[in-house]
Amino acid sequence: MKDEELKRMQEVEMKDTLIFQGKVVGLHEYDVRLPNGNTAKREVVRHCQGATILALNDKGECLLEHQFRFAYNEVLLELPAGKCEEGEDPLVAAQRELEEETGYKAGKIVKLGEFYPSCGYTDENIHLFLATDLTLGEMHLDADENLNVEWVKLDDVLTMIREDKIKDGKTIAAIFDYLLRHSDFNIKEKTL
Amino acid sequence: MKDEELKRMQEVEMKDTLIFQGKVVGLHEYDVRLPNGNTAKREVVRHCQGATILALNDKGECLLEHQFRFAYNEVLLELPAGKCEEGEDPLVAAQRELEEETGYKAGKIVKLGEFYPSCGYTDENIHLFLATDLTLGEMHLDADENLNVEWVKLDDVLTMIREDKIKDGKTIAAIFDYLLRHSDFNIKEKTL
Repeated sequence: MKDEELKRMQEVEMKDTLIFQGKVVGLHEYDVRLPNGNTAKREVVRHCQGATILALNDKGECLLEHQFRFAYNEVLLELPAGKCEEGEDPLVAAQRELEEETGYKAGKIVKLGEFYPSCGYTDENIHLFLATDLTLGEMHLDADENLNVEWVKLDDVLTMIREDKIKDGKTIAAIFDYLLRHSDFNIKEKTL
Repeated sequence: MKDEELKRMQEVEMKDTLIFQGKVVGLHEYDVRLPNGNTAKREVVRHCQGATILALNDKGECLLEHQFRFAYNEVLLELPAGKCEEGEDPLVAAQRELEEETGYKAGKIVKLGEFYPSCGYTDENIHLFLATDLTLGEMHLDADENLNVEWVKLDDVLTMIREDKIKDGKTIAAIFDYLLRHSDFNIKEKTL
């Protein structure tokens, strides 16, 4: 059924033009054939996989980073995260990035799920992890990284998402996945 | 406090090189000065704003689309969504896209929040809306759009997010924002 749907809706690559290969993104323009026989152009940003870590302590607090993001010219609140190196297992990347960015080692780390940030033009896949049994070591930031880390109560994180103080996609997806998988949560609809 | 933090962490643009301006994305490479005085390169995908619509009926079902996404070579399950035209109010874009893609007009539409898909390299901002009081009109798809629409119970959508059958960022963010704003939801932590 899923395969049939894919076959019915699939766009077929006819030509791949590499516009730019940077350190972070590769930009391609594709000519594709649509299911109705027409052709179209697709602009695609190729990006490596990523890992995001919800690191929770036994007080119900998680590690949040304040990080300046040039694309928005804003300091954003985000969970620790980073890019997977070529061929690196996302779980290993998650452990490495957590330690580099926050100094914490995870005694236990489990996968929560995956997240596609913006499916219209990028192929990025971000793997979401839950890290617990944390012990403090040392931070090792990349030369051009500049961030502050703090513990924030999960309840306060939910308030910050509701009030748009947290807008970062991977952070929202990881917290939601955690709630859906590791908590009993009841929805009672209010009058709209 | 927030302004001070921004000033302390801000990276200052020194040079903006436009690599490519496509129909969907513009790719820039910036030279920036870091707070410590060093310089670095930043690759940024400039993208217009977007609107995503959680359209709910009075049976607790929402409209989901099956859409082929070339970047992933997969059919994804997503809420209706689209790009804001130049200068267009995101709320107007949301009403327009809902009607074009699904045929439904919203009697009532309210903003849920905003979502930054992937803050490391894109400036895209997706506005999230809740649409209710729906009446059926006619679909008007763009020439290269090909999608199937169905009603799915919100409970089933949550299961699909938990089971990674829905991975699309804007869809996850809109549903979570809806739950945080318009439902009473209780979290009881399970043993991890």
